Amino acid sequence: MIDPRFYTLSGPVSVADLAGDAEVRGDRARTVTGVAAISSASSDDLVYFDGKGLAPQTAARVIVLRESAIGDVDAGATYIVVREPRAFFARVATKIAVERGFASGAKSVDPTARLEDGVALGPGAVVGPDTSIGSGTIVGANAVIGPGVAIGRRCRIGAGVVIGCALIGDDVTLLPGALIGQSGFGVAGDQRGPVDVPHFGRAIIQDGASIGAGVTVDRGLFGDTVVGELAKIDNLCQIAHNVIVGRGAIIAAFGGISGSVTIGDGAMMGGRVGVADHRHIGRGAVLAAGSAVMHDVPAGETWAGYPARPLRQWLREVAWLGKAIGKRDGGEK
Amino acid sequence: MIDPRFYTLSGPVSVADLAGDAEVRGDRARTVTGVAAISSASSDDLVYFDGKGLAPQTAARVIVLRESAIGDVDAGATYIVVREPRAFFARVATKIAVERGFASGAKSVDPTARLEDGVALGPGAVVGPDTSIGSGTIVGANAVIGPGVAIGRRCRIGAGVVIGCALIGDDVTLLPGALIGQSGFGVAGDQRGPVDVPHFGRAIIQDGASIGAGVTVDRGLFGDTVVGELAKIDNLCQIAHNVIVGRGAIIAAFGGISGSVTIGDGAMMGGRVGVADHRHIGRGAVLAAGSAVMHDVPAGETWAGYPARPLRQWLREVAWLGKAIGKRDGGEK
Amino acid sequence: MIDPRFYTLSGPVSVADLAGDAEVRGDRARTVTGVAAISSASSDDLVYFDGKGLAPQTAARVIVLRESAIGDVDAGATYIVVREPRAFFARVATKIAVERGFASGAKSVDPTARLEDGVALGPGAVVGPDTSIGSGTIVGANAVIGPGVAIGRRCRIGAGVVIGCALIGDDVTLLPGALIGQSGFGVAGDQRGPVDVPHFGRAIIQDGASIGAGVTVDRGLFGDTVVGELAKIDNLCQIAHNVIVGRGAIIAAFGGISGSVTIGDGAMMGGRVGVADHRHIGRGAVLAAGSAVMHDVPAGETWAGYPARPLRQWLREVAWLGKAIGKRDGGEK
Repeated sequence: MIDPRFYTLSGPVSVADLAGDAEVRGDRARTVTGVAAISSASSDDLVYFDGKGLAPQTAARVIVLRESAIGDVDAGATYIVVREPRAFFARVATKIAVERGFASGAKSVDPTARLEDGVALGPGAVVGPDTSIGSGTIVGANAVIGPGVAIGRRCRIGAGVVIGCALIGDDVTLLPGALIGQSGFGVAGDQRGPVDVPHFGRAIIQDGASIGAGVTVDRGLFGDTVVGELAKIDNLCQIAHNVIVGRGAIIAAFGGISGSVTIGDGAMMGGRVGVADHRHIGRGAVLAAGSAVMHDVPAGETWAGYPARPLRQWLREVAWLGKAIGKRDGGEK
Repeated sequence: MIDPRFYTLSGPVSVADLAGDAEVRGDRARTVTGVAAISSASSDDLVYFDGKGLAPQTAARVIVLRESAIGDVDAGATYIVVREPRAFFARVATKIAVERGFASGAKSVDPTARLEDGVALGPGAVVGPDTSIGSGTIVGANAVIGPGVAIGRRCRIGAGVVIGCALIGDDVTLLPGALIGQSGFGVAGDQRGPVDVPHFGRAIIQDGASIGAGVTVDRGLFGDTVVGELAKIDNLCQIAHNVIVGRGAIIAAFGGISGSVTIGDGAMMGGRVGVADHRHIGRGAVLAAGSAVMHDVPAGETWAGYPARPLRQWLREVAWLGKAIGKRDGGEK
Repeated sequence: MIDPRFYTLSGPVSVADLAGDAEVRGDRARTVTGVAAISSASSDDLVYFDGKGLAPQTAARVIVLRESAIGDVDAGATYIVVREPRAFFARVATKIAVERGFASGAKSVDPTARLEDGVALGPGAVVGPDTSIGSGTIVGANAVIGPGVAIGRRCRIGAGVVIGCALIGDDVTLLPGALIGQSGFGVAGDQRGPVDVPHFGRAIIQDGASIGAGVTVDRGLFGDTVVGELAKIDNLCQIAHNVIVGRGAIIAAFGGISGSVTIGDGAMMGGRVGVADHRHIGRGAVLAAGSAVMHDVPAGETWAGYPARPLRQWLREVAWLGKAIGKRDGGEK
């Protein structure tokens, strides 16, 4: 469900309004009031089915899909039949909901912001409407707290930080220039070319987490991106949409966590580790600096390399290669 | 030609003023009013020739060069003869033109800014002199739109974005913290040490392009850096000076595109791809995540690896190496 | 010694107040007024000894350590005996000193800021208390100059830059969005989970250095992080706590320099070079783009690869591997 703290909902939108010239099978007068992933939708949400894998059970009554997929999903829904369901969805979803912004002429600190006692706001800090900030929290100069954002107690929000569509727990540290809750990266394509897939989720930063300077944490596509309790993320990391970072996980600088990755509690990553989308890093796993992870990593294992493999194997390969060359060259230095 | 929207030109500067103690062959009273690359200069520009490759045809009448190169370029010009032409140029070019800045005490929104109806400016947004912003564009809180910058219609400029020396098309999205149009990275050296080469070009973001959070797009050295129509760039990428990103090209997080690279239409790059300077990525080419590209990549091919090579070759090498080690070790696990 | 320009010192804090429930051997009434590394402490500093390596000589009279280490350090000190000395230190050090911030309601330009003639401040720039800025320096729009920061003459501080706990020399360029002097990344752990190690040092940017857009330069843990004279750092690099970048060193985009690395004068790094913590890169060494450096690199050598090794060896391995595969596959293409 779309969190109305962060998005402005247009109210009921009819299938006819959404479909435009596209073919509709079913009730053109039916309306939707939200958008969702097909597997977790309510009956009032617009969803799309991209035809990959099995069609999930869905409560949605309005589904964007290809003609070939009609037989795969629940009978009784209204279908908008298109060639590129994801691109079509991307082009119409903002008719249903859009990210809240600032009104022109808005004050730096909105009168509706709820600041507990003992909040310190640096000069130039912008605090949007319907926000809340807990006692003892320090907001740095020129930081931007977007509409609806809630921040807990005793947080340190650095100068120049930007937060939107996000909930921040207690005792969270965001170093200067961290960027939290912007739209994630998703590109759909149709005959008109590539189109950004709009994101309707949130970013959640749990209690005691720390996030480095210049880090980007994108919000979820529909659901949440979550940085777990006490997780520690170094500078210039990228945490993509719908990632779950486990409790106490540690990610060193330039870590790049692709969309929908899950990272188990206490996992540790050296500098410049990349993880491909949808992969799972097990609890307590260790990824050496520079690892490019393309497979799931079991709990407790240590991996390294590009592509990443168990550390022992990687070390053997590196050593063997060096020796093989040395032998062939007759020991030439 | 230097775009006077972004640079303050000093007016005519004489060779004598520029040369200082350096040797001059020709007319010390001749003046220049601009700077340019030697191959595209007008007769009023100061240029340098670094002696690499063939001397190009040039319309320039004032040329900084080494003594050994005098015979290689057009007779009839005035020469400033130095040991390190690029470093000399870097040290004197700002006598001719400098990037425009803000006057002390300037208002947040300059009275000369031209905002069409329906522009929304967030709190703390700074809009410089001689800028223009098209209708329907949203400028985020604490964003900075530098002097002379033009932004089209229906753009979304995120909070904390900084734009300078740039032209932004219609329907462009810049996520929070994107940094557009700063000086590129160029270091020249002489006996006094390294010196930054000042950049006099622009950054152009074409219609429908999207640029992620924390991305840096440097302006061109003399010409333009161009992000093409509908190109989609993920968070924390670096697009260096004079890069051309083709129409609809897609670059995932941490992409690093070095100076003067050209990327064909529809090319796709996974996360953390690096491309060495001056290389060409062909139309529709695909670069797997983590590729470090040191050669031109032909249109339509898929490459991977460090250094990058055709995907099939890389996969064979990775698989073979794993097997070779396994065999040598007698199947040891 | 903690620089009082950047930190608020609480005054004398007793061992009893610090120890809480932890065991104390010695004088519970003894007080400390600062924190320091054990090897460079004065008699008034709280220090910890993590038990790694030999215990250094120390002037400190209050030491946090494990019971097993008591025999290893100077007799006569007062000991706070804990299981995890570094984590204990991390949890109590802010009782002794905390980073200065802005007071709520502070003006954008603090009345105590000392600006020489000819300083240009862009709209929205925040200049904290007890700062100084030299003549001819340009501070970009919405930049944040934190409490106590000193900036020299003729510097160019880009829009959106954030500087704290830092001293900036003359003729320094900081491109937009550079983040200078935030706390470094250090995680200690105990039974309560991971905890950030607070940083009490500074960031020093020496004369003529240039730092790219979105770069992060963390301050030192106790001592200084130093970017040397005329060093040139490209966009989106990470310079960790206590790094020393030598005079005229050059680091291309995405360079990642881990904690306590030292880089010799004139060393050069291509794009996306990573250096593991505590390594030394010799004077004039060259690291090819993409190198992941896990060992010290001798002066003047050129290295490449992951893991990095001398360039010639890396090139041989890459070439040999390609040939070996080709031969085995019978020349298959």
